[in-house]
Amino acid sequence: MTVALSEEVRRVVTSGRLAHLVTLDPDGSPQVSLVWVGLDGDHIVSGHMGEWRKVQNLRRDPRVALSIEADGRDERGLDHYLVVRGRAEVVEGGAAPLLQRLAHVYLGPDLVFPPVSGPTLGCVVRITAERVGGVGPWAH
Amino acid sequence: MTVALSEEVRRVVTSGRLAHLVTLDPDGSPQVSLVWVGLDGDHIVSGHMGEWRKVQNLRRDPRVALSIEADGRDERGLDHYLVVRGRAEVVEGGAAPLLQRLAHVYLGPDLVFPPVSGPTLGCVVRITAERVGGVGPWAH
Repeated sequence: MTVALSEEVRRVVTSGRLAHLVTLDPDGSPQVSLVWVGLDGDHIVSGHMGEWRKVQNLRRDPRVALSIEADGRDERGLDHYLVVRGRAEVVEGGAAPLLQRLAHVYLGPDLVFPPVSGPTLGCVVRITAERVGGVGPWAH
Repeated sequence: MTVALSEEVRRVVTSGRLAHLVTLDPDGSPQVSLVWVGLDGDHIVSGHMGEWRKVQNLRRDPRVALSIEADGRDERGLDHYLVVRGRAEVVEGGAAPLLQRLAHVYLGPDLVFPPVSGPTLGCVVRITAERVGGVGPWAH
């Protein structure tokens, strides 16, 4: 079931904190890497210049999870964090312009990334959220 | 294959940064929560006062991954992070003293956590590393 992303969730996704992205290897074991993320409408998106393991994994099994550390603590003193679980679609092309947009968030307003550009390079991972959790106002 | 934890890896594990712990749900999809971690010899350990989903998952399927953000950046400007993949053993009891030890790292030197104590409460998740990766001097 698709869930809409609340304003609080959208704020964490666009906060410039790295997302810990989990995919599933062919043997079903969890594979993790840290990625830049942004929003494209109601989807969480990341850009990938190469056919990395995580991209290969998502083409085979779209189940995905990501977690992002957030500001604030709950009443027990535990740090807020966001977990989104859902399904990913791999869309061909579009990695360079997305990474350039995200570089402004993650690296700074003047930075150019990736070094090679072109609209058809790489791919975009587009995540549809099915569950939102963690610790914070978005967790119920 | 078990891998020994280098000094650089041990420093990240004990840095007081949260670990993003990934387990596998019964349907094989990834489940993530953020936990405090420490070292017990060559194992990475976390304490759990309740029979949470992650603990239930690890009793059924010991495959686990964790990622931790670290200080420093590589030559591309990308932040360092550690990923450890391995197998977890759930050891009964010992959660309260471990959480109390880790509370000094994560919350502060004077803090008491958990509020309820006793040596037989909860469980300890003890992780044996099989692969170490991410971005940083520990990734090859």
